[in-house]
Amino acid sequence: MKKYNFSPGPAILPASVFKEAAKGIVNYQDSGLSLLEMSHRGPEFTAIIEEATALVKELMNLPAGYEVLWLTGGASTQFFMAPMNLLDAGETAAYVDTGTWANKAIKEAKAFGNVQVLASSKEQNYNHIPKGVKIPKDVKYLHLTSNNTIFGTQYHKFPKSPAPIVCDMSSDFLSRPVDVAPFGLIYAGAQKNLGPSGVTVVIVREDLLGKVNRHLPSMLDYRTFIKEQSMYNTPPVFPVYVSMLTLRWLKKLGGTKVMQRRNKLKAGLLYDEIDANPLFVGTAAREDRSLMNACFVMNKGYESLEKEFLALCENNGLVGLKGHRSVGGFRASIYNAMPKQGVQALAELMRDFATKKG
Amino acid sequence: MKKYNFSPGPAILPASVFKEAAKGIVNYQDSGLSLLEMSHRGPEFTAIIEEATALVKELMNLPAGYEVLWLTGGASTQFFMAPMNLLDAGETAAYVDTGTWANKAIKEAKAFGNVQVLASSKEQNYNHIPKGVKIPKDVKYLHLTSNNTIFGTQYHKFPKSPAPIVCDMSSDFLSRPVDVAPFGLIYAGAQKNLGPSGVTVVIVREDLLGKVNRHLPSMLDYRTFIKEQSMYNTPPVFPVYVSMLTLRWLKKLGGTKVMQRRNKLKAGLLYDEIDANPLFVGTAAREDRSLMNACFVMNKGYESLEKEFLALCENNGLVGLKGHRSVGGFRASIYNAMPKQGVQALAELMRDFATKKG
Repeated sequence: MKKYNFSPGPAILPASVFKEAAKGIVNYQDSGLSLLEMSHRGPEFTAIIEEATALVKELMNLPAGYEVLWLTGGASTQFFMAPMNLLDAGETAAYVDTGTWANKAIKEAKAFGNVQVLASSKEQNYNHIPKGVKIPKDVKYLHLTSNNTIFGTQYHKFPKSPAPIVCDMSSDFLSRPVDVAPFGLIYAGAQKNLGPSGVTVVIVREDLLGKVNRHLPSMLDYRTFIKEQSMYNTPPVFPVYVSMLTLRWLKKLGGTKVMQRRNKLKAGLLYDEIDANPLFVGTAAREDRSLMNACFVMNKGYESLEKEFLALCENNGLVGLKGHRSVGGFRASIYNAMPKQGVQALAELMRDFATKKG
Repeated sequence: MKKYNFSPGPAILPASVFKEAAKGIVNYQDSGLSLLEMSHRGPEFTAIIEEATALVKELMNLPAGYEVLWLTGGASTQFFMAPMNLLDAGETAAYVDTGTWANKAIKEAKAFGNVQVLASSKEQNYNHIPKGVKIPKDVKYLHLTSNNTIFGTQYHKFPKSPAPIVCDMSSDFLSRPVDVAPFGLIYAGAQKNLGPSGVTVVIVREDLLGKVNRHLPSMLDYRTFIKEQSMYNTPPVFPVYVSMLTLRWLKKLGGTKVMQRRNKLKAGLLYDEIDANPLFVGTAAREDRSLMNACFVMNKGYESLEKEFLALCENNGLVGLKGHRSVGGFRASIYNAMPKQGVQALAELMRDFATKKG
């Protein structure tokens, strides 16, 4: 049975990427060696990380002055590393609280400077993105979470900000074209749209660095990674390799514009079904619905069917659909690598289920 | 041609591990999914990380009170994270400077407290381990590097220390039995004896934690990893999996006692050849020679043959033998997974070369 994986992350990657990655583990490019045992300073891996970096630059259409770095520790490490590098004691950074991860970013930042939370949708269980938020002129940066994996909301338009935007793009990185110019720092744990877990991509405007007075350990200073091209110490070779393969796939398909078109089409199919189906209801405000994570629950009166539908999905090869405990119900994560057929299969199953139960 | 990989790290792992790892990338245990796309909170990965943790505890024969953690960022991150967690401002830690990595650990620690360098072999290009070092009673911990990958020296006996030992065991982790009781913290980047790059194993005595006054970001606090069993955020799934497979292999072969016997045999074969062969000479003091990394150069008068021998090795499938620029010549890294046949092939090639050139 063909399976479709709707997990929120680690998440689906292109089947061709899995195949190629597996080959490299046994015998990398007929070298007689596994990629896992190769020196990170050898020509093989150097070519991989250089290509991965170049592809991010190309696919994100990076302006001059931005660097692409490969780190570890996930977005959770960026929650403190960003303020540690950018926000001096006594300075203020602005945050918008759009969900669990934004909240953690706020918590970690507070140790490094003043944190001004401009808006929060917490009271409404983060079911929307706060609008009309006024961004003070004198803040060091504005922190946003572009897509909220848990609550299924997404910025479809970023607010105009007088300060550089620092953005957690973990769950919608490279899912659409983004004008990078307003951003000072973009970070993304790979394990949603880019690769397996174990690597974090960071895009940073170099001129913002080196302005805080605190001590930065070498491994927590973005400048170390810039200077050594992410090779100050041994990088996570395999996660970087798989990310590079995914980036190649993305470029071959046509880049972020094509991805956006595909993602709109896929999400449209699913949200249309959610809206038309009497058994289900979406949890996020329509205008903020994420193209990456569609959250929905059983409609009023049908709550008792939740387990049955989840089991039906599993039995039909549609896996990873259980919603996060913060929202309940279902969450369909439909990242770049999810084929349209997967979303169609889910929508059809919802339709069939409604016919049977309605 | 059968290849033997003598790279210092990322390094050789058992062939059976590569094979099994590749299988899991295409279809993990006939689940129809790749391990790379599976939720880290699902039953599959939970079982993997629990087994890996249990195997480290068993193979290291850990006493009660020690925790096994899976982190990222390599030993380079532990260089600052250990003092950040253990050494309060104003307190003193003792370090022994036995090579490049010890030196980096010293540099990073200085930002957190007083660092007393008890001894250094730097003047002799780190060709030996300083002996008879007096360890002050009032230091918070003693930091050692058990094996110096670059210079090919190794502690064959750890000094008695009144303070807990913090030890970088990256390059000889699980290569021999170690009595853990004198250690407060052991860390090892996986990419030598344990797995691929991208994961760091940390063994810590829990009662030493929580005693510093500084702020610790969640991701830099060992207690976060203890509390959440290394799952506070998404761990590096695949590197942990490959490490678990290697641990299984190690246990099946008989554990650290068997490894020590094998490693002594392999290193003995190679050092015997180095000592008997007129063309080559070892660089490390005999009593401190590493069982993991054998460093040797061309003997006086034969320096011009270096490139020729290196090319001969490559042509015979013996790769990764070029010495680090700090020592020059050759370095044969013969970790747990290097079969005796690999070392024999190298020794024979050295012998043949001497016959041809002698």
